Amino acid sequence: MTDEQTIKYDAPTIEQEIDVISTYRLEDRAREVVPHGGFDYMSGASGDEFTLKQNNEAWTHKGILPRVLADVENPDTSTSILGHDIKVPFIMAPIAAHGLAHATKEAGTAKGIAEFGGTIMSISAYSGATFEEIENGLQGNPRWFQIYMSKNDEMNKNILDEAKADGATAIILTADATLSGNREKDMLNKFVYPFGMPIVSRYLTGSGKNMSLNNIYAQSKQKICPEDVKFISEYSGLPVFVKGIQTPEDASLAIGAGAAGIWVSNHGGRQLDEAPGSFDTLEGIAEVVAGRVPIVFDSGIRRGEHIFKALASGADIVAVGRPVLFGLALGGWKGVKSVLDYFETDLKRVMQLAGTQTIEDVKQARLFDMKK
Amino acid sequence: MTDEQTIKYDAPTIEQEIDVISTYRLEDRAREVVPHGGFDYMSGASGDEFTLKQNNEAWTHKGILPRVLADVENPDTSTSILGHDIKVPFIMAPIAAHGLAHATKEAGTAKGIAEFGGTIMSISAYSGATFEEIENGLQGNPRWFQIYMSKNDEMNKNILDEAKADGATAIILTADATLSGNREKDMLNKFVYPFGMPIVSRYLTGSGKNMSLNNIYAQSKQKICPEDVKFISEYSGLPVFVKGIQTPEDASLAIGAGAAGIWVSNHGGRQLDEAPGSFDTLEGIAEVVAGRVPIVFDSGIRRGEHIFKALASGADIVAVGRPVLFGLALGGWKGVKSVLDYFETDLKRVMQLAGTQTIEDVKQARLFDMKK
Amino acid sequence: MTDEQTIKYDAPTIEQEIDVISTYRLEDRAREVVPHGGFDYMSGASGDEFTLKQNNEAWTHKGILPRVLADVENPDTSTSILGHDIKVPFIMAPIAAHGLAHATKEAGTAKGIAEFGGTIMSISAYSGATFEEIENGLQGNPRWFQIYMSKNDEMNKNILDEAKADGATAIILTADATLSGNREKDMLNKFVYPFGMPIVSRYLTGSGKNMSLNNIYAQSKQKICPEDVKFISEYSGLPVFVKGIQTPEDASLAIGAGAAGIWVSNHGGRQLDEAPGSFDTLEGIAEVVAGRVPIVFDSGIRRGEHIFKALASGADIVAVGRPVLFGLALGGWKGVKSVLDYFETDLKRVMQLAGTQTIEDVKQARLFDMKK
Amino acid sequence: MTDEQTIKYDAPTIEQEIDVISTYRLEDRAREVVPHGGFDYMSGASGDEFTLKQNNEAWTHKGILPRVLADVENPDTSTSILGHDIKVPFIMAPIAAHGLAHATKEAGTAKGIAEFGGTIMSISAYSGATFEEIENGLQGNPRWFQIYMSKNDEMNKNILDEAKADGATAIILTADATLSGNREKDMLNKFVYPFGMPIVSRYLTGSGKNMSLNNIYAQSKQKICPEDVKFISEYSGLPVFVKGIQTPEDASLAIGAGAAGIWVSNHGGRQLDEAPGSFDTLEGIAEVVAGRVPIVFDSGIRRGEHIFKALASGADIVAVGRPVLFGLALGGWKGVKSVLDYFETDLKRVMQLAGTQTIEDVKQARLFDMKK
Repeated sequence: MTDEQTIKYDAPTIEQEIDVISTYRLEDRAREVVPHGGFDYMSGASGDEFTLKQNNEAWTHKGILPRVLADVENPDTSTSILGHDIKVPFIMAPIAAHGLAHATKEAGTAKGIAEFGGTIMSISAYSGATFEEIENGLQGNPRWFQIYMSKNDEMNKNILDEAKADGATAIILTADATLSGNREKDMLNKFVYPFGMPIVSRYLTGSGKNMSLNNIYAQSKQKICPEDVKFISEYSGLPVFVKGIQTPEDASLAIGAGAAGIWVSNHGGRQLDEAPGSFDTLEGIAEVVAGRVPIVFDSGIRRGEHIFKALASGADIVAVGRPVLFGLALGGWKGVKSVLDYFETDLKRVMQLAGTQTIEDVKQARLFDMKK
Repeated sequence: MTDEQTIKYDAPTIEQEIDVISTYRLEDRAREVVPHGGFDYMSGASGDEFTLKQNNEAWTHKGILPRVLADVENPDTSTSILGHDIKVPFIMAPIAAHGLAHATKEAGTAKGIAEFGGTIMSISAYSGATFEEIENGLQGNPRWFQIYMSKNDEMNKNILDEAKADGATAIILTADATLSGNREKDMLNKFVYPFGMPIVSRYLTGSGKNMSLNNIYAQSKQKICPEDVKFISEYSGLPVFVKGIQTPEDASLAIGAGAAGIWVSNHGGRQLDEAPGSFDTLEGIAEVVAGRVPIVFDSGIRRGEHIFKALASGADIVAVGRPVLFGLALGGWKGVKSVLDYFETDLKRVMQLAGTQTIEDVKQARLFDMKK
Repeated sequence: MTDEQTIKYDAPTIEQEIDVISTYRLEDRAREVVPHGGFDYMSGASGDEFTLKQNNEAWTHKGILPRVLADVENPDTSTSILGHDIKVPFIMAPIAAHGLAHATKEAGTAKGIAEFGGTIMSISAYSGATFEEIENGLQGNPRWFQIYMSKNDEMNKNILDEAKADGATAIILTADATLSGNREKDMLNKFVYPFGMPIVSRYLTGSGKNMSLNNIYAQSKQKICPEDVKFISEYSGLPVFVKGIQTPEDASLAIGAGAAGIWVSNHGGRQLDEAPGSFDTLEGIAEVVAGRVPIVFDSGIRRGEHIFKALASGADIVAVGRPVLFGLALGGWKGVKSVLDYFETDLKRVMQLAGTQTIEDVKQARLFDMKK
Repeated sequence: MTDEQTIKYDAPTIEQEIDVISTYRLEDRAREVVPHGGFDYMSGASGDEFTLKQNNEAWTHKGILPRVLADVENPDTSTSILGHDIKVPFIMAPIAAHGLAHATKEAGTAKGIAEFGGTIMSISAYSGATFEEIENGLQGNPRWFQIYMSKNDEMNKNILDEAKADGATAIILTADATLSGNREKDMLNKFVYPFGMPIVSRYLTGSGKNMSLNNIYAQSKQKICPEDVKFISEYSGLPVFVKGIQTPEDASLAIGAGAAGIWVSNHGGRQLDEAPGSFDTLEGIAEVVAGRVPIVFDSGIRRGEHIFKALASGADIVAVGRPVLFGLALGGWKGVKSVLDYFETDLKRVMQLAGTQTIEDVKQARLFDMKK
């Protein structure tokens, strides 16, 4: 199939506030409105989805202990990260191809974030929207740019130039996706993207449209190493997060190469299957990072309780991904805002019930080891 | 919906003895006779009901060891707590809104307790019946009063005055419910109370009728701290239990503030979800309390075996809640008495088979660690 | 219902060899031929059947390690216990009321054992057959007598006299059943024995027929203590096993009182529910017994692998119960023999594959800790 | 049934490439084309299939940690074993009776291996094809010969002579199968081989055709011991693997007797049930072997992740079995090649995502303990 051919893909178009009782329920509802192949791509993971399941299961390894005499009222969820004051300790994770969820693509997500306010959008290199389209929604709100590197350094420089021109205040180097994970559902569905990827299309043969993830990743750079961290950092002059860190060893390497932050993630279980749950790796990494740089955590955040546990285990902020896309699918930008509102409200309730007034209190909270 | 509007809520009215084979079976039977929203409110918990499940699961972490040469016959279940001699080591837990289970409301429960005799009724601040109506059933039997504090100290004083006038011999300060837990079932059902709460209605906007739990809790005091323990203790002159303790740290704070007893509970899994099972927290708390004050335990008691395990892990007595409400639903006061009889009989059997003649023997019993 | 009234109970009568692929499958087949109440009584246990499940589950806590260069051929399963040379390290466990499984009652079981040869029958005090009827089947083969004590010592003496006259070479004192466990299935079924218990009927009000287990146990002696071990031992002059031991402490007490053997058992999960799996308690007990007296193990033996694991964990022999009754139900005495043949064959295969030539080799085998 | 009688067994005959999304899915598809008794024989195991399940479950005990800054591209899967340079660290496991899966029998498997190239065929003594037929497919590619010993040493010498003449470069002594495991499915199906076993038929009464595995194993040698390792090694002059090692003790015995390699395996769960998962035993064995001889691992390899974990836990190469047979069933030699291609591709992806450039890197990788 060539790039000119049209794939029929009827992404949802509705814009409405949604009632979020739990983000797990959102997933069930999104399944009904998003085309099958697109939904499986968004919600699925690699192999047996063992790691995806571990991402959920890992939360059960630690319990939150309510502190009931802590004199708490109206907990304060605000914090800051790399100079940004944000009203909540969560930001939008970089995710490719929001257009699978909604016709407004990343612009819809961006508008939801802008209307929520006080947080940060991560723009994926595999965005289906252009920087300009995203800015229409984002309206000057802060954004970080996530890069999948090209094998060609000049193209990397071009993309970094553009991201910087667009106002990105940090670069997220995704290091765990030099090849596609073994996405069985996509293979069964013979899934290809129904639209192109304007940001990275310059270094692809093809625009991204009608291409499989496998094909796209294979055209990207495989040999990621500390030198790349240094290159991006020096060329862009921006702080760099290394995303996909799952070991203390890699955290140390990244910091040694000049990383401004560590992004603990297993890519939502979409890359190396049979890896541990991302939350299970966090504490060991945080011990080695030891506050030298901030830590962002993702992979499995579905509730306020999860944000609490991640922060109490060493993360400075977390990133949320799929739940926001489900909100986008169900209500466009309004749905995105509903999901972000849910996380804020839920986290406040958890903070109140756990007896923590501030994000700093959360970070100091002791969790209960459920395995002993 | 205003307070004057009538919500149709057909609570059961039957009064009959019930055959209790297990309290789990009672729950299944109660589901068939209690209106859906009311049943979900009573039996449900917060979030994924992870903590509710942990409350049940935690019992499987310790096994009871039968001692078979212990020369036991007709075990003696009597004990005492804060000067009350009681015939069994269990009392009624404070629970809101018994009227959801039966038209006789708390008065029905009280009568069942009075007819059983030799134990203590906990009266919830969120009772649907007045003190007078409850006394009709309770007939002079001992009672403790559970308080949800108002933001207004004068109202707290009034309520304590009334409770004292009603004959309460202890105050239970619920400290783990300064906001409503994330009760997903109630949200799905858009559940509101079908009747008012006469005891606390003075500090509510509205009577409680047609109001959600969320709304009611939000109007209560959030900033609970050791000073509140001291205030209630000094103002009322009554012994104070701090209810909702799940950490050794809070137990120490409470005792330091003058608490006369520690009430280990996670509110039946209804408040902070992803907290550990209440039984899993008991032993660590009891080690720190070290006998300075008595410990009451609740959250998950469904069998005589559970009473045994809680006592062998540091509790002095336990409180039972939902099973009594299921008995109320199925048989009014007679059903309540059937459930209390069941617990007494079941505990006696367990004590005999475990080789323990007295409650003191139970407290000394060694449990078997099932996780090793 | 009085003793004279007839309960319809159509026990199976067929006598045939049966094909035993696994004893679990036998249970499924027996369910189809044994009257419902009788089957639930035989196969069921107390409470949630947690302990029954643990009896099965506990086997998964240890793995057998094949030793493949051990020069083994035709393993020798023979051993001896208290002076009896037996061809296999398993005997028949004492079980009440075989008549529920087959019209030939204990006489059928006894004949199956006699035809198999080289093992020992345990005769339950709650047998539905008389000593004479059992001897018709047993034909001089060795037997041990299991006693539930009466509150009246003279009756105990009479029963011991009779057992001794019948040729019992040891007495098994069941110490874990001073009251009935909480047999929920029997309560649901309102199960009563459809026939009497001629051996103990002298100390019952009623013959046992039309009586519940609850009623019968309540009429038996509750206050079992080391003195009883001493009494039986001295009065009978026979070696005494104390059955129902689940703690090192009780093992020591029993030996101190003159027990000739320790019988580790939790009564097949039928007495104290929420006790650990019997196999999980064995190793700790064996360490304390330290070879001073032999150990018999029961509760959960369904395969040759289980016999192997019990012996490798400190048992000298095991007793099998329910599987034999299922064989009795499906084929009378021939079915009993089929089941015993199965266990012998299965154990031999396991011994061969594990590289153990003798029972002594099995006892020395190292198991693999599956929990670490 | 005599040898001359014909059993109807319609093995698949189709030859086609197959799309391998996962080998678990292959098993489901093979179930539909292979005759029932043959499929159960191939896919089934002994007893409750506890050990078969443990072989799968054991992989979840260790997680792979992605190393994301490792500068890896086009990982190199080549390695060598006993002087053979192979392009992948996996070889074909010895399996009996490939004719159950496909009419081309072992010749089909051999051709698939030859077309894939760069690996080793293990020829089972219980092959349904002759050495000549296999060589038609194998076309000079390397092969090892797996021996089940006869009780008659002269026959063993003859078979070794033939294997050597056929070009085998190593002998695999299967030591864990001196009797058949308790194959319940085969007993239910009354399964007998529908064709003979030309290589070992000289020491059988019967050709193998119409015979049960039980019968065949019983005619083989039971008393396997270190002396046999020495005999085969000295008589053949070939390196000998001892297959079925599950303990450090047996590994040491084998090496002491002259084994050139240790083959860690529990026979795919087909022999001693209630043994631990094979992967769970590997690390302890590797510690004792300590590099003195190479280690081959089998039992449970279904994904590239499994190969990675086995190598990171001490194996030098792995052997794959059932998945290849499922490929044979679904596509003849072409299906075999498809499966081998899948393993190679999958392993390369895992190596890339785990940040390992070479097999030596994989062996040095640290796994994550999922049980802690």
